[in-house]
Amino acid sequence: MIRTIKINSKDNVAIVTRDVKRGELLDIGTEAREDIPQGHKIALAHLQKGDEVLRYGVVLGTLRKDVEKGDWIGEHDLDLPLSPALSELTWTGGPECDRQKKPGQPPFFMGYDNGEGKFAGTRNILAISTTVQCVKGVVEAALSRIRNELLPKYPNVDGVAALTHSYGCGVAIDAKDAAIPIRCVKNLMYNPNFGNEIMVIALGCEKLTLERLLDNEEINSDNVLVLQDCKGANEMVDSIVDMAERKLAKLNKRKRTPCSLDKLCIGVQCGGSDAFSGITANPSIGYCSDLLTGYGAAVMFSEVTEVRDGVHLLAKRCSNRKAFEDLIREISWYDEYLAKGNVDRSANPTPGNKKGGLSNIVEKAMGSIAKSGTAPIERVLGPGEKNDAHGLIFAATPASDFVCGPTQLASGISLQIFSTGRGTPYGLREIPVIKIASQNTIFSRWPGIFDISAGDIIDKGLSFEDIGKRLFELVLETASGRLCQAERNGFYNDIVIDNPAPIT
Amino acid sequence: MIRTIKINSKDNVAIVTRDVKRGELLDIGTEAREDIPQGHKIALAHLQKGDEVLRYGVVLGTLRKDVEKGDWIGEHDLDLPLSPALSELTWTGGPECDRQKKPGQPPFFMGYDNGEGKFAGTRNILAISTTVQCVKGVVEAALSRIRNELLPKYPNVDGVAALTHSYGCGVAIDAKDAAIPIRCVKNLMYNPNFGNEIMVIALGCEKLTLERLLDNEEINSDNVLVLQDCKGANEMVDSIVDMAERKLAKLNKRKRTPCSLDKLCIGVQCGGSDAFSGITANPSIGYCSDLLTGYGAAVMFSEVTEVRDGVHLLAKRCSNRKAFEDLIREISWYDEYLAKGNVDRSANPTPGNKKGGLSNIVEKAMGSIAKSGTAPIERVLGPGEKNDAHGLIFAATPASDFVCGPTQLASGISLQIFSTGRGTPYGLREIPVIKIASQNTIFSRWPGIFDISAGDIIDKGLSFEDIGKRLFELVLETASGRLCQAERNGFYNDIVIDNPAPIT
Repeated sequence: MIRTIKINSKDNVAIVTRDVKRGELLDIGTEAREDIPQGHKIALAHLQKGDEVLRYGVVLGTLRKDVEKGDWIGEHDLDLPLSPALSELTWTGGPECDRQKKPGQPPFFMGYDNGEGKFAGTRNILAISTTVQCVKGVVEAALSRIRNELLPKYPNVDGVAALTHSYGCGVAIDAKDAAIPIRCVKNLMYNPNFGNEIMVIALGCEKLTLERLLDNEEINSDNVLVLQDCKGANEMVDSIVDMAERKLAKLNKRKRTPCSLDKLCIGVQCGGSDAFSGITANPSIGYCSDLLTGYGAAVMFSEVTEVRDGVHLLAKRCSNRKAFEDLIREISWYDEYLAKGNVDRSANPTPGNKKGGLSNIVEKAMGSIAKSGTAPIERVLGPGEKNDAHGLIFAATPASDFVCGPTQLASGISLQIFSTGRGTPYGLREIPVIKIASQNTIFSRWPGIFDISAGDIIDKGLSFEDIGKRLFELVLETASGRLCQAERNGFYNDIVIDNPAPIT
Repeated sequence: MIRTIKINSKDNVAIVTRDVKRGELLDIGTEAREDIPQGHKIALAHLQKGDEVLRYGVVLGTLRKDVEKGDWIGEHDLDLPLSPALSELTWTGGPECDRQKKPGQPPFFMGYDNGEGKFAGTRNILAISTTVQCVKGVVEAALSRIRNELLPKYPNVDGVAALTHSYGCGVAIDAKDAAIPIRCVKNLMYNPNFGNEIMVIALGCEKLTLERLLDNEEINSDNVLVLQDCKGANEMVDSIVDMAERKLAKLNKRKRTPCSLDKLCIGVQCGGSDAFSGITANPSIGYCSDLLTGYGAAVMFSEVTEVRDGVHLLAKRCSNRKAFEDLIREISWYDEYLAKGNVDRSANPTPGNKKGGLSNIVEKAMGSIAKSGTAPIERVLGPGEKNDAHGLIFAATPASDFVCGPTQLASGISLQIFSTGRGTPYGLREIPVIKIASQNTIFSRWPGIFDISAGDIIDKGLSFEDIGKRLFELVLETASGRLCQAERNGFYNDIVIDNPAPIT
């Protein structure tokens, strides 16, 4: 019997998990009435021409013909709904769904909550911040000494991360859009995993001055080293090592304590997606997200270009007018940014997407949005804006994996869930990244990369609720100190800063 | 007696090398007729209202009043010439100056010239190219094994460089301006220092496909590893290490041989500039550049926004119509790029520049252009375009140090001269970077950073010809294998790729 996948209880279509021949029996209690390719939609009931086709609980389009239960609904069978213009969206008073407050004994995690901020850390990391790429070579030289000579003396510290980047000078620093990279570099410093121990290496003549990054009282020799004040190459390295040791001594006193979930702020992301990402891994993440926000955690989803064509659905989920208005502002900004670059939104499904069963742009966006579960959107953040809200948050970032990650990091996530079907060794040094595979083939073929697979939804008939619950447990364990695969491998990506303003 | 500095024999003003009091005797055979701040202009002759003031051999402006020899000429004493609009520039048949072919026994350097291309290498480096940031963590993990386990077995190889970058996916790959980052990533592989041993690590689903980077016959398992074809984390790292060993064995056979200077292609750059950069270090680089191009070498200068307001002077120096037209095209592109970002050209001198004695935008640009000496411009390249010309070349790059460097690297330089007054620890792993200080204070205060100082032009009355000749010798020694300070320290910057197109 062939498995099908139905995402939302309202849906009147499901997805077949492998190529189906006419007459084969399906788990929906009927035979396929025609051949249906893997990942494509099958009707779950008799529907008439003009009826709405529902998937992910939303309208994908209206039918051009009558269909019977067991019929294939292909791209040509649907009249596509137009994605409404942003100017036509209005705030309608918030979503119908309730915040899913969970009953019973609330779960907890063992986090670093030493009074540093609203959220607790999941790791205890010394972060060496930098104002400008120019200092990168010196910081790198100091880093190997810090890791080899110092770190073993401070066993409570999990690691040292140099927040080097390619911003900071030779840029239009007063351009309006420069606000984005500046706040990313600034807010990165205050990630919950870094214990509020500020350590900044500056050059001295860069455009991204210390004053743009720190408060006046923070600019002192405890927190800041300016290389142009040093006497030569050796003193530069020695001074960084000395400063690191002072910070390590303080960080070494941090302790894990039981934290309720309102102390947890995580991010979710998908990348290297395949046809199954949107029907296995992403809905599982969404279920896990609902559990987390139900217990008071903050969960950020992102990737503007991936959700662009489902924006009207996000707009309906905003719990308050400010979130709605911020959503429209951020999406509008991205529309204009792409237009300035003379780029089409390229949001229509590609031939590969269509072959995979994605009939139209709403369906594609819903596969990405599935990561956000069903909770109301409480807050919308610009790229790299610091989060202080609980519940579900839309953090407007590029969809590029290695830009989205650092940008969510700047917004304050201390853990990330990342789904992939094609497979990527993506990871971050600053936080654990839990990697979930969309199918078991890649999970088995890439040992040492994934932490969990959603493939049993296809292969063993598990539900995304089943995988979502496992993922929830894994999040709590990982937040409490269990190493994820990216940490075991030491595969870490750079801090790529989003700079939409010109370089000069 | 107080030193003054005159840059060009035509100049009718000089610069005072320290604060001067009225009545103090100057080396121009007269007393100062008023107080003059360090770095400011002093008249070298009686000049009348309306006369042209010449510095760097070009007109800075016309006088608003009569002056005597020994008078201060400040910013308010000059009517500024307008920088002509690009549309008003026409090709006038090439420069008056001759190519300075040098007489006598031609000098040589000991380069790697094993038939790989038009130019020889100055180092023997294994370059591990990457298609996308996603693979960075895996490459980094392999890199430490390659350096520790393999490199000692191949003593003729100077080092291993991972050309990791933040481009390759989540970008508008078909945008017109995406041509720039794509050709940078592509052309980097063929730098003369890498011996044409292509080694590319790809992920498998990135937008920057192998087909965009390599010819069909180059895409094979000798040259390319696709991580999505590997079986797990360990195999990824092992495969990279194995591939590196095969390449190292080939590179180990490269030998240094005597090369004439037409086998040398270098770049010049300034960064972290002070008031002396344009009057000591940069003219010394210019003199060295004239020597190099006179003997047939290729010398690239760059930094569009720094030369923008002297573009009419560069236009006159183009030796052929194509160079002129390419110059106008590249400068126009940058004007439009900045305008799209709603940024002013910000080319007017800053208050700090004016305090340092730079009266206007032409004077500021000339300080940067001084690095190019007096040779005709034979070729103009877009950012990252591969160079195959000899003589002086304008490679249009951003002025940002850490973007200009990698972009010149893509264009094929195998050595760079870098001048600074404020001081930066900038360096590149792929090529030697000779650092020249604009004054002795920073040179002495930062031991281990600089290779040479132009400060004796101020302190000991040396000419920039004197320093330029020393620099020329240093270039040949360094190209032949002498380590520069950046290599001794191991202070290396990232490969920052210039991407003016949107990220998605």
